[in-house]
Amino acid sequence: MTGHGQQPNQQFAIRKGPALSDATRGRILFGGDYNPEQWPEETWLEDVRLMKDAGVNSVTLGVFSWAKLEPAPGQRDFAWLDRLMDLMHDAGIGVVLATPTASPPPWLGRLHPDTLPRDADGRVEHWGGRQHFSHSSATYRRHAAAITEDLAARYGAHPALTMWHINNEYCTSDYGDEAAERFRRWLQDRYGTLDALNTAWGTAFWSQGYDTWSGILPPRHAHYLKNPTQVLDFRRFTSDMLLECYVAERDIVRRHSPHIPVTSNFMPLWIGQDAWRWAEEEDVVSVDLYPDPRDPLGAQQGALVQDMTRSQARGPWMLMEQAAGPVNWRGVNHPKPRGLNRLWSLQAVARGADAVCYFQWRQSRQGAEKFHSGMVSHAGEQGRTFQEVKQLGAELAKIGAEVTGSRLEADVAILHDWHSWWAGAQEGRLSTEVDHPAVLGAWHRALWEAHLTTDFTRPEHDLSGYRLVVVPQLYLLTDPAIENLLTYVREGGTLVCGFLTGVADEDDRVRPGGMDGRLRELFGIRTLHEWWPLDAGETAECDGFRGTLWSEEIEAATDADETIPYKGGELDGLPAVLRRGSAWYVSTLPEPDALKGLLTRAAAEAGARPVVDGLPAGVEAVRRGELLFVLNHGREPVTVPVPGTLHDLLTDTSVTGEVRLDRYGVAVLKP
Amino acid sequence: MTGHGQQPNQQFAIRKGPALSDATRGRILFGGDYNPEQWPEETWLEDVRLMKDAGVNSVTLGVFSWAKLEPAPGQRDFAWLDRLMDLMHDAGIGVVLATPTASPPPWLGRLHPDTLPRDADGRVEHWGGRQHFSHSSATYRRHAAAITEDLAARYGAHPALTMWHINNEYCTSDYGDEAAERFRRWLQDRYGTLDALNTAWGTAFWSQGYDTWSGILPPRHAHYLKNPTQVLDFRRFTSDMLLECYVAERDIVRRHSPHIPVTSNFMPLWIGQDAWRWAEEEDVVSVDLYPDPRDPLGAQQGALVQDMTRSQARGPWMLMEQAAGPVNWRGVNHPKPRGLNRLWSLQAVARGADAVCYFQWRQSRQGAEKFHSGMVSHAGEQGRTFQEVKQLGAELAKIGAEVTGSRLEADVAILHDWHSWWAGAQEGRLSTEVDHPAVLGAWHRALWEAHLTTDFTRPEHDLSGYRLVVVPQLYLLTDPAIENLLTYVREGGTLVCGFLTGVADEDDRVRPGGMDGRLRELFGIRTLHEWWPLDAGETAECDGFRGTLWSEEIEAATDADETIPYKGGELDGLPAVLRRGSAWYVSTLPEPDALKGLLTRAAAEAGARPVVDGLPAGVEAVRRGELLFVLNHGREPVTVPVPGTLHDLLTDTSVTGEVRLDRYGVAVLKP
Amino acid sequence: MTGHGQQPNQQFAIRKGPALSDATRGRILFGGDYNPEQWPEETWLEDVRLMKDAGVNSVTLGVFSWAKLEPAPGQRDFAWLDRLMDLMHDAGIGVVLATPTASPPPWLGRLHPDTLPRDADGRVEHWGGRQHFSHSSATYRRHAAAITEDLAARYGAHPALTMWHINNEYCTSDYGDEAAERFRRWLQDRYGTLDALNTAWGTAFWSQGYDTWSGILPPRHAHYLKNPTQVLDFRRFTSDMLLECYVAERDIVRRHSPHIPVTSNFMPLWIGQDAWRWAEEEDVVSVDLYPDPRDPLGAQQGALVQDMTRSQARGPWMLMEQAAGPVNWRGVNHPKPRGLNRLWSLQAVARGADAVCYFQWRQSRQGAEKFHSGMVSHAGEQGRTFQEVKQLGAELAKIGAEVTGSRLEADVAILHDWHSWWAGAQEGRLSTEVDHPAVLGAWHRALWEAHLTTDFTRPEHDLSGYRLVVVPQLYLLTDPAIENLLTYVREGGTLVCGFLTGVADEDDRVRPGGMDGRLRELFGIRTLHEWWPLDAGETAECDGFRGTLWSEEIEAATDADETIPYKGGELDGLPAVLRRGSAWYVSTLPEPDALKGLLTRAAAEAGARPVVDGLPAGVEAVRRGELLFVLNHGREPVTVPVPGTLHDLLTDTSVTGEVRLDRYGVAVLKP
Repeated sequence: MTGHGQQPNQQFAIRKGPALSDATRGRILFGGDYNPEQWPEETWLEDVRLMKDAGVNSVTLGVFSWAKLEPAPGQRDFAWLDRLMDLMHDAGIGVVLATPTASPPPWLGRLHPDTLPRDADGRVEHWGGRQHFSHSSATYRRHAAAITEDLAARYGAHPALTMWHINNEYCTSDYGDEAAERFRRWLQDRYGTLDALNTAWGTAFWSQGYDTWSGILPPRHAHYLKNPTQVLDFRRFTSDMLLECYVAERDIVRRHSPHIPVTSNFMPLWIGQDAWRWAEEEDVVSVDLYPDPRDPLGAQQGALVQDMTRSQARGPWMLMEQAAGPVNWRGVNHPKPRGLNRLWSLQAVARGADAVCYFQWRQSRQGAEKFHSGMVSHAGEQGRTFQEVKQLGAELAKIGAEVTGSRLEADVAILHDWHSWWAGAQEGRLSTEVDHPAVLGAWHRALWEAHLTTDFTRPEHDLSGYRLVVVPQLYLLTDPAIENLLTYVREGGTLVCGFLTGVADEDDRVRPGGMDGRLRELFGIRTLHEWWPLDAGETAECDGFRGTLWSEEIEAATDADETIPYKGGELDGLPAVLRRGSAWYVSTLPEPDALKGLLTRAAAEAGARPVVDGLPAGVEAVRRGELLFVLNHGREPVTVPVPGTLHDLLTDTSVTGEVRLDRYGVAVLKP
Repeated sequence: MTGHGQQPNQQFAIRKGPALSDATRGRILFGGDYNPEQWPEETWLEDVRLMKDAGVNSVTLGVFSWAKLEPAPGQRDFAWLDRLMDLMHDAGIGVVLATPTASPPPWLGRLHPDTLPRDADGRVEHWGGRQHFSHSSATYRRHAAAITEDLAARYGAHPALTMWHINNEYCTSDYGDEAAERFRRWLQDRYGTLDALNTAWGTAFWSQGYDTWSGILPPRHAHYLKNPTQVLDFRRFTSDMLLECYVAERDIVRRHSPHIPVTSNFMPLWIGQDAWRWAEEEDVVSVDLYPDPRDPLGAQQGALVQDMTRSQARGPWMLMEQAAGPVNWRGVNHPKPRGLNRLWSLQAVARGADAVCYFQWRQSRQGAEKFHSGMVSHAGEQGRTFQEVKQLGAELAKIGAEVTGSRLEADVAILHDWHSWWAGAQEGRLSTEVDHPAVLGAWHRALWEAHLTTDFTRPEHDLSGYRLVVVPQLYLLTDPAIENLLTYVREGGTLVCGFLTGVADEDDRVRPGGMDGRLRELFGIRTLHEWWPLDAGETAECDGFRGTLWSEEIEAATDADETIPYKGGELDGLPAVLRRGSAWYVSTLPEPDALKGLLTRAAAEAGARPVVDGLPAGVEAVRRGELLFVLNHGREPVTVPVPGTLHDLLTDTSVTGEVRLDRYGVAVLKP
Repeated sequence: MTGHGQQPNQQFAIRKGPALSDATRGRILFGGDYNPEQWPEETWLEDVRLMKDAGVNSVTLGVFSWAKLEPAPGQRDFAWLDRLMDLMHDAGIGVVLATPTASPPPWLGRLHPDTLPRDADGRVEHWGGRQHFSHSSATYRRHAAAITEDLAARYGAHPALTMWHINNEYCTSDYGDEAAERFRRWLQDRYGTLDALNTAWGTAFWSQGYDTWSGILPPRHAHYLKNPTQVLDFRRFTSDMLLECYVAERDIVRRHSPHIPVTSNFMPLWIGQDAWRWAEEEDVVSVDLYPDPRDPLGAQQGALVQDMTRSQARGPWMLMEQAAGPVNWRGVNHPKPRGLNRLWSLQAVARGADAVCYFQWRQSRQGAEKFHSGMVSHAGEQGRTFQEVKQLGAELAKIGAEVTGSRLEADVAILHDWHSWWAGAQEGRLSTEVDHPAVLGAWHRALWEAHLTTDFTRPEHDLSGYRLVVVPQLYLLTDPAIENLLTYVREGGTLVCGFLTGVADEDDRVRPGGMDGRLRELFGIRTLHEWWPLDAGETAECDGFRGTLWSEEIEAATDADETIPYKGGELDGLPAVLRRGSAWYVSTLPEPDALKGLLTRAAAEAGARPVVDGLPAGVEAVRRGELLFVLNHGREPVTVPVPGTLHDLLTDTSVTGEVRLDRYGVAVLKP
């Protein structure tokens, strides 16, 4: 499963079959989840009027309609959906049709308690919320397949249908008995023999050797620390079981409508699914993205997820859900200030989105998410939220033809891997302060602030197309991944690795020396004596900067090309950063400016250049195809240098040498 | 159930039957819970001696005596209680006799596990503590009725009996199977049809439509956010089931002793019971009150509960429990400094209490509450605590005849409603920082510090007797309540409403526009664009003050009479406060002095005046009947201006124009 | 069970049978847990080479080997252990052989779910971690006895065997049904009659009177506060059940090898076991000790546990586990800086250890503790960790003959009791800020910093050998304990007691007056009016110092000899400290320097002297036998005055009048 030598954006095998372009056809999809079953039919007509007014060209129907479609076991009520599909078609609005399997009707749990998941403590997750289904339940899968089959048979050829949306934000675990049985089968497939499993799990420690497959359980509540490889495999299993559920439904709808692309929406940078693996099974990669409007790094958090999703999609992708205003699941949920919805939507387009959609069209008046905003908020048509949505719709229509289908080029790749995350996120580690997404975010931030466009990729994939590859943290690295990194450097690539990388193999077995010997050789590390995690808020003084979170007691090899030492303390004089040729190792997390400086230097040496030079703080520049997007994330107007004379598609004016952006302003510049 | 045009204090239908005055008969009841079963009989005699010494005239017996009265199923042991009832009678001490049903004996749970409640996670609440009974258990109810029946039959005519006390601090929930069955029946009564329930609960959202009543559960543990109306109805149901338990026992004792008043003690401002509804079923409204002696706002917290309880009682009420010293359920439990017990007791009398009682008479040496203080502390007769109790008893005896039965007049009403609290206190709201009791407390504090005496009342009740009505926060308002407010203002009343009011209807359905249209019209709000909750500790600058907790993006109608704008930030220039005629809307929580200033102005304009003008800080003045109570909550002596020449009942001296109060001092002044 | 008039260190009856000296035979045991089943056999040979290189003379085998020894029910695989025992014997390394019963194989839980414990919420503790056994399970006990029997039969006479190690860190509770049944039998043994139990538990409170033994449960999840004596007895029961498990296995191995000493390793100052009681059943008292290398008081924490363990052992003891580097169960796990492992190891020897061992020999590459350090770390032979271990091994060999078997003399005793700790650590107390180990630590710290060597002892034991006895806090004191204290003072001893001492009797019944009357008389307390706990961070001003955590409203008797008053606040002028003759009562926790000053004065008056005068800060001095250990806990070199000319065993040099110690330096000086 290592790379195949293609260019960065084509490194996966090219799949046949439908794609996002079959839905966009030259337009940026604009719209959102539409839950008309919550409203009387007269509201539907009002909705259509407002959708047209706002330039909506796509709605997602049926995400949570199972109880409406199948009000009692085996019954079917499609009449309302027939009317809606026709209504949308008549209005020229495409439909992303969802299988309703994320929230089974109450009768399913009532009649079939085996469909309900249990947590590690044995607590049942009841109906009354959503996602109360066990991925492992044969009964659930049978009922989900049946409703999917009927839905696909009925609407597979409907002219409004543009895409299939399977389930929603797959995310349930199950520790119950049926899941235990499936876990054992999954383990049998993985390991073949009990001996192999006992070896991989290191069951010799703490007397955990299994004498029968039937003795293996999910990692349920225990007295003390659980077996880490069991926990790791349970995460792998959970991701795989959810994927099985997805694939089963995908195959049904694909059989009925082979030319309609299929997706399932990811949560952003979520730990539960191996999204590299999942993306291979999707025609369209879509994501739900909800940065906190109050977060000073909200725009960068957005960019990270956008870069990640684009990398999974190997091209244009779909922003399936965002919020036009506040969400309702944070402690304090802030609305979006004027202009921010537009800014962040255009940022997504700049970073490869060909679809800008929302949860949801019309804000609910009832239910658990009635304080989650909609494109039409409680304030209605006159509300600021809808007025801004309308403006955005018009702008997206203006640039759609120029944008859709075009790609971004990146000189820099960030490596990321779910298995490594899973293994590193367990209890019994040296520091609970080390949070993988935070480390990943810190490295992406450094590159984003340096205006270096980045892809994400898997550690086993071909890296030859990149000038610079960075590894914020890959605690677990497989042997092919290590060989891949060595090859990349050997063939001239520049590699910068962060702390706690290459520690464990794929079974979460610590490699001899505490770090793979080939990597130590690569970086010029003779001995890794001890890890020195830092307390919360503590810093480690280094020559020229301060490190955070972590430090290491390293003895450099005599042939290291360069080291930057720790200063003072127990590690005084020992190397904080080592370089040997074009391979760098950074044994701490430098403070933001220091990390930015270090990566800027490495990028420059590798020949990777920022999109535009001399950008003011808070301004983001992205080149997509031949277009240059310039975005002002600040609340004050700025003047931004741009190369030569360009045409701003949004204002239909020309700019030369510089462009003026208002607070939250955006220009989409064409040569 | 709207008001009937009576004066504020008589707005409920006048009930027939016994009342608190039947127990007081011109004396302030003074005493407490007495648990003699914990002590040898020789201690009983010592207790009587000390009670007489302290002026105790009332004890509450039997609250936790079930296992003593019925040591094994069906057995009865009344002999010890016979002796006690006689002993009390001989000593001239009245008995508030409790049904012992708050803590069933171990044998009940052992033989009938169906009597034990379960929490939302399915955990059983076992015996070994207290309140381990399910309100929904038929078995529990049968056993509770039987012991109540026997107790009432035996003592209903005993001359010591002055009042019945049903159970204790009703507060258990139950999510188990029998509760589920009762919940379904309760829902059938409320909604009649499944369609009506599905509509009210908004089950179209997240595919929650019910096809059978049997599919409905209590809101047990779920994967994600629960249906909010289900949660709301479960709170209503729980309050109603507990009330059913109360009424069943009340009817039994009433049958045996129709002339003896009945009560059940509330916890102060507690979320679990709709105390407006409960109070209608009580002859005497009683409450347990435990402000933290260290809380700088302890006196105001006490005043709030006292005002609330008096309003529920529509006249004199009973302080059933307070602590002579520390409690034992806080993190750190502070004793009462010298004088504080007296001060807070007389405050209760000033605010309408005709009974000042304690948990408990003699501090326990064993059991879970042995560090909760008693009137006789571990230090015994010579302890400071008892010495102060004794002084207080003498003083209460001195003023009893002048005080009991008299009423307070209030020009100002604060609206409060449990259903609104329940609906607003759920998950999935815009801010977890908004705590309903804290908002209510902030508004009461502003009025209390302005020396404006306040009633509390329900939003549906007649408000015509008040000059000023304030609504700190009524997230949920029924249509009759809204009409009631409109009528009140239309007929000349002054109304001041706080943020997040009028958002939802009685099913927790958000009203169009995010706030009821009639209310928006009332206040001069054209559009409520967005809510802007504030982070913890964040403030919103307004013209002349700072807001906390919350702000709103409001577009004023062109005919608003007055607005006070936000200054700076995203809401710059938009109205923080709006006034149209005598209706005010305050879209944030002003800091304490600002809210006090605002309400003082509104009160003055409405013609509501403080009890006494020119009071020093920390001094409280309350007029009850013709008596003026002046209380110094400060630790330094003060001189307080009073109108004319008055007679201090406590010192039996005259004061003219001013009265001097020591630290924690009190004067009870009669014209 | 009171003392017998022996000298402090011999106050228990001298037991016959084997002892630690049978294992040490003039050498300090040096080594650690060895888990060779995790490694291929070729690694075993490498291990032996490194062990010899490091001077290892003892390894602990088999602690977690049950699944290896009994891979399926009833099977046995001893071959690998045979080879290891022989290998160790050939290498001259002794074996501490463990019964593997702390972690049953998966098949035991699978086939016998009754062996799995439940917590108070009813959650099962599953296999997959460790210690998933119920102390009350007859099935578990049967299987544990069988494997122990076979192990003892096979290896009882093996020449490598030096000690038996039973189970590991006994620590499981069980609230399940079989435990409930055993709890009832334990209660029947303790109380004889239900009446006695009802009296002891104070079940008259809250209607908890039991009519049958079968109605009694472990203190499972309840609605509110549980019965405190039930909770206390459940702790006693749990300690006793675990002890039964230990004794059963001990008796088996003792039968097979009566001359081999037996131990089970304690966790340091752990709440779950009454270690005084346990120590009586052990031939060797051993402990696991893991101070945080970052804790500024780490050395003192270590000294406390060392003093405690030595006191339990009544002579030399075994450090069964420590870490050569970091552990993996704190939030952030710091390694040991260079020299600290040596320093703390020699500190243990100074304070009586004749064995310095580690968990574990070779750091695991897999499993839950692979980030817990080993003597051979991931860095291997060249790693700093192993290099320091090797140096230490050589030094221990140098001093072993001079040290082993020798004793410490202490003039000062600190009283400690598990029952008191258990009773005071419950919910429903006046302050959750009062943490018993923290109070104990504060008093020990004061004495440690004053260079006063301290024993610990039980409150019922003979105290006559000590010049000074301190009671940091004994909330619960039995009558014999109180009499013991009175006798001690009467016979001339000096006693200093901290706050909240003598409050309750052995049933957790508050003594009249809130503190035992004999003790009040002893200290000159007329009335204890109220306890005044302090908030977190709050201090109470006293004359000359500040108190923390607690204060008390005390009225002194007229014949108190000396009082130090509180200053300001509600307690102004009341005594903070009282002294009557040689009995002191300290009603608060003085800040560290003040407590040190107070205890230094009391010690001086009592004739107790520091080990060495004029020590610099951070230097510890301990006299063991005729040797003087001087330890520098600071990171800077110091010069330390020592008496006369001495020979440093470590450097084989003479020093006169002073000795120079490097950072973390140690001298072992012989006259």
